[in-house]
Amino acid sequence: MHTQSPHEQSRRRALDEDTRTTKRWIIGEPLPSDKLEGQLLSKRLALPVFASDALSSVAYAPQELLMILLVGGLSFLTFAPWVAAAVVFLLIVVVVSFRQLVRAYPSGGGDYEVAHRNLGRRAGVVVASALLVDYVLTVAVSVASGVDNILSAVPELGPYRVEHAVGCVAALAAINLRGVRESSKAFAAPTYLFVASIGIMVAVGLIRTLAGDPPIAESAQYGVQAESLTQAGIVLLILRSFASGCSALTGVEAISNGIPAFKKPKVRNAQQTLVWMGAIAIALFVGLIAVALVSGVHYAEDACHLVGVATCESATQRSLIAQIASATFGNNSVLFYVVQATTAAVLLLAANTAFNGFPMLGAILARDSYAPKALNTRGDRLVYSNGMLVHSLSAIVLLVVFQARLTSLIQLYIIGVFVSFSLGQIGMVVHWLRALRKLRSRQSVRRVILGRLAINGLGAAMTASVLVVVTVTKFTHGAWIVFAIMPVLSLGMLAIHRYYGSVQRETRYGTVEAAAEEVASQPVGDHAIVLMGILQRPTVKALDYAIAADHASLEAVHVSIDAESTAALQTAWVDAGLSTPLRILPSPYRDVVTPLLRYLVTRRHEHPDEIVTVYLPQYIVGRWWENLLHNHRANRLRQKLLLVEGVSITLVPWLLESSSRLYRRAPRPLPGHERAGIPLRPGRKKS
Amino acid sequence: MHTQSPHEQSRRRALDEDTRTTKRWIIGEPLPSDKLEGQLLSKRLALPVFASDALSSVAYAPQELLMILLVGGLSFLTFAPWVAAAVVFLLIVVVVSFRQLVRAYPSGGGDYEVAHRNLGRRAGVVVASALLVDYVLTVAVSVASGVDNILSAVPELGPYRVEHAVGCVAALAAINLRGVRESSKAFAAPTYLFVASIGIMVAVGLIRTLAGDPPIAESAQYGVQAESLTQAGIVLLILRSFASGCSALTGVEAISNGIPAFKKPKVRNAQQTLVWMGAIAIALFVGLIAVALVSGVHYAEDACHLVGVATCESATQRSLIAQIASATFGNNSVLFYVVQATTAAVLLLAANTAFNGFPMLGAILARDSYAPKALNTRGDRLVYSNGMLVHSLSAIVLLVVFQARLTSLIQLYIIGVFVSFSLGQIGMVVHWLRALRKLRSRQSVRRVILGRLAINGLGAAMTASVLVVVTVTKFTHGAWIVFAIMPVLSLGMLAIHRYYGSVQRETRYGTVEAAAEEVASQPVGDHAIVLMGILQRPTVKALDYAIAADHASLEAVHVSIDAESTAALQTAWVDAGLSTPLRILPSPYRDVVTPLLRYLVTRRHEHPDEIVTVYLPQYIVGRWWENLLHNHRANRLRQKLLLVEGVSITLVPWLLESSSRLYRRAPRPLPGHERAGIPLRPGRKKS
Repeated sequence: MHTQSPHEQSRRRALDEDTRTTKRWIIGEPLPSDKLEGQLLSKRLALPVFASDALSSVAYAPQELLMILLVGGLSFLTFAPWVAAAVVFLLIVVVVSFRQLVRAYPSGGGDYEVAHRNLGRRAGVVVASALLVDYVLTVAVSVASGVDNILSAVPELGPYRVEHAVGCVAALAAINLRGVRESSKAFAAPTYLFVASIGIMVAVGLIRTLAGDPPIAESAQYGVQAESLTQAGIVLLILRSFASGCSALTGVEAISNGIPAFKKPKVRNAQQTLVWMGAIAIALFVGLIAVALVSGVHYAEDACHLVGVATCESATQRSLIAQIASATFGNNSVLFYVVQATTAAVLLLAANTAFNGFPMLGAILARDSYAPKALNTRGDRLVYSNGMLVHSLSAIVLLVVFQARLTSLIQLYIIGVFVSFSLGQIGMVVHWLRALRKLRSRQSVRRVILGRLAINGLGAAMTASVLVVVTVTKFTHGAWIVFAIMPVLSLGMLAIHRYYGSVQRETRYGTVEAAAEEVASQPVGDHAIVLMGILQRPTVKALDYAIAADHASLEAVHVSIDAESTAALQTAWVDAGLSTPLRILPSPYRDVVTPLLRYLVTRRHEHPDEIVTVYLPQYIVGRWWENLLHNHRANRLRQKLLLVEGVSITLVPWLLESSSRLYRRAPRPLPGHERAGIPLRPGRKKS
Repeated sequence: MHTQSPHEQSRRRALDEDTRTTKRWIIGEPLPSDKLEGQLLSKRLALPVFASDALSSVAYAPQELLMILLVGGLSFLTFAPWVAAAVVFLLIVVVVSFRQLVRAYPSGGGDYEVAHRNLGRRAGVVVASALLVDYVLTVAVSVASGVDNILSAVPELGPYRVEHAVGCVAALAAINLRGVRESSKAFAAPTYLFVASIGIMVAVGLIRTLAGDPPIAESAQYGVQAESLTQAGIVLLILRSFASGCSALTGVEAISNGIPAFKKPKVRNAQQTLVWMGAIAIALFVGLIAVALVSGVHYAEDACHLVGVATCESATQRSLIAQIASATFGNNSVLFYVVQATTAAVLLLAANTAFNGFPMLGAILARDSYAPKALNTRGDRLVYSNGMLVHSLSAIVLLVVFQARLTSLIQLYIIGVFVSFSLGQIGMVVHWLRALRKLRSRQSVRRVILGRLAINGLGAAMTASVLVVVTVTKFTHGAWIVFAIMPVLSLGMLAIHRYYGSVQRETRYGTVEAAAEEVASQPVGDHAIVLMGILQRPTVKALDYAIAADHASLEAVHVSIDAESTAALQTAWVDAGLSTPLRILPSPYRDVVTPLLRYLVTRRHEHPDEIVTVYLPQYIVGRWWENLLHNHRANRLRQKLLLVEGVSITLVPWLLESSSRLYRRAPRPLPGHERAGIPLRPGRKKS
């Protein structure tokens, strides 16, 4: 065997080549494993990756806070510092609470894991559905706000708000479905630029104010039509303003879901990043509120509530950031555009974060049997494509239904975040209480744990109260939708869990012996049937495979739909000298399925001990629309045959030439050739 | 073997029972073959079955004819008798022409066959697309007119016109998808009742007129706002009126498509039925026009064109038939309701006819490779369900787009009919010319053929001119839509034909010897792989089947996604004492597909002469939503594996308990049991 014939050599070479091409197709551009694992992130890179969501929320939180206060009239702006202070205090409490959660649950499960472990699976499912809703809303709100800021810089695009928003989501979906992975560095620049530009803007504004030349916003000249409010109405308005300001807290939980991505020491680095993120968010939030108040930004729910705007129906108000940037740096100055661009960029990055979060949570839920297993299947590009599709379609529906109006969407937002915050913090309280019970004796440890319990207790109390406030103030403004969807999602997840449980009980063995008992220790009779329409390449390939598999008995079966073609097949069968017996089944109804099923049932009745394998050729096509033109009868047949006891189906693929689009391959060998060692189909492609 | 053991006996009995249950499931309620073939129809039954379409068109043709004339003012009604006479003359010519077509092409192919054979496949495809469009429009127009007549009797339903129309189509679709077959008798009563009631109404109206007490329609009091027209405008209006009146001709072709359903002598009976149908249609058409003119029905395109109607925006005009019936028999009299009910019934029957015609033509086109083969696949109830779905969805789209307005829909109608009439008649002319060329010598026969040529020539000339008139007068009123759709359909059909042709060339053998050459004459090495996730019933069943099939070599392959479950499987494998080797493939990416593909390619490289069969368990479920929860990974895997050269897939079904919903079955035997002769799963269902 040392001296190979030239034929042998060329055959080996062709096979080598074939193997290599197939391998390249399978693997695609090689993705080394660290790409999937993700490079571990230094704090410098982790901050922008995980904080873009939290930081970007200062792009809309101050604006919404002030806007609600303005409903009561200009005098209500005096409440603004106090409301902002309340938001900042809440933010501090939540950050400190999360510092503890990060240490206690460093696996990256976040609130879902905490609630699931400490409060039971129902609470876990509620947290999961709250988070899913909020991931969708993060995309909708961030994109709406990003589009707002783009339109503030380029007002000509105004009429196409919804189209732009949907386009952004579609673009993000496309990018993420392709599986972009080197995102950490792409995140860093815009996030730091955003922080820097907003920081500089705030600093310049405040310095100019101290120097006696405060910036004046374009809307400072307008008065406001105040609603006349009762005492209770005033309190409610201030609470609403606070609730809208709380949108600054969204995204704080991101780090708790990403601990495994940090460099070691993971927990410590995550905690420090969390504190940094909190500090920056507070600085930007407070600074923007201060400059907005100084420069007199009057941003109303509806431009027509402003007194002094001439054509309020057609006029669009520019976003709060745009107004401040324009007042501080001058309208249409370079720095104005820088601020708008970085704001839009960081908002889109925040939306992008949710594009990773939703499918990841979906996969975890699928792994835990709370969601369809399909969500835990990675697509060709190693991303959870099914989850991404569900996610982006939901976001698009929201944007279309609410016409990409930030003020409407924000009413639905943060309910989910605060549900998950509250349950997470309550879970932490339970966690510490359990720890206390275990450690009765050691006083020093007890004291530490009691301290932590106090912090999470405060966090739980505050987030729960805020949840109540947010619910009360937003319910009639649209938040009821979230309260309608969350139970449906939760109950759906529990139902799916029950269903998978029942399937598992149906298919599992009690003992290993039970399994062993059922496996035949030696081969038993088996019969193969090749379904034969006309004598053509795909059917002959199926016949060839059936012969090669060497079944105990083999026959070709033809369902006779018209006498003419049956006779033609019989003649061809004899002419070709095929030794496999050909059985003709009459079909008075011109139907292939029923006669075949009848024959199989009869045969199973006569030979009850054997199994039957039916060979079906299957066309493989390369263009989506070809699926409309092929395989319908074969699919119907397959579904029907799989219902017959003791029958299995063998699909023998026939790759149509168009299937080469699926991967660039050398000309395919013919059925017989590929085993006979003739590498290429003669006279095709290779001339 | 004569004395069977009790065990053996019970096993046989169980198998008998199983076979019987399965058979009942396969066959359903038995449909004897004459049901599919259709009982052959006597003339008495054939007339209502085939004529409901043609006769029902007198329910709207007179109304639309008069309505268009009224645009010119009341004085234009004097043209009505002449326009009606032109329509009647055309109807006679068409009926006589079709008498000849029926004799020459008795196979039921109708215009499609005539055009295809005599004018080439392009003409055939054009006729086919024209007919498809018209089948859809028949449903839309008939349902719209039927709903009009229902609303004329029950005006309270007025606001829900579109909903009623869509509901009717959906109901017809549901009935036809269930495969109602005994329709011929169901057709007879309403059709004959319709003919009788309209006939009596016309007779009573005319007799009352002769007796000096003519019926007076409710709209006779209203004047009409006349448009001022130029000479050319007048001619165009009269032509438009004629074109609308020509809708009386629709459905005449139905008999030519149904000749095989007639009792013998088929051709003669079909011809006589055709003549009867023509005679009745003419009588009703002329009678209705006459009574409408006598009683002064003024039906305008828009109620606001009538002078004297108080609240024209909200008022709905009652249909012409309703107005005549009310004037003749008295409003809300029993006979009035009888007329309205039979009219609505016959219109729905006409729509029902199209529900048979469209899928049948679709199947013929699919058989001739002009449409997706799926249209030639009968569903569970032996009807062409795919075609029916396409048909009813198209009709629903039309009704919704045009808000079920008869006057708008009728603008699109009859273009298709006249395209097919014209091409059919031209085809007949070619047919006779060819016949003449063949029969040079025999003078007597020549003369007969020349006579027939003349008739079809006249038919061709007239239908072609009417097509031009119809096109010119309706084009801007909506008919352009038909002219946009027909070429798209025709080109689509030709493209599909080309595509199927190329696939056929790709898969066929030049000679029988070529086929014989490629079939291995004796078994060659084959290798089987059972994909093993965890040791549970479905995977064990697959393993069991693979062992039974006795492949040359067999191994179980496990893709290791996490170390824990892999170790568990290995332990269970050893504990169960399974002799099949278990191969573990590492999967760093937590992905099942890629490692398996790599392994297969490598193996194919090392053993190039063998084929590989991969066993995959497949869940069979009984409820549609369960498909969302199962088989996703298996399907993805199947698609990927089928692309690897030399690999075939064997699907081993696992029927979940819910699959018993698919057919009532006895408790299923377990994998090992069904071949070991243990009939029932112990301890389940059967306690």
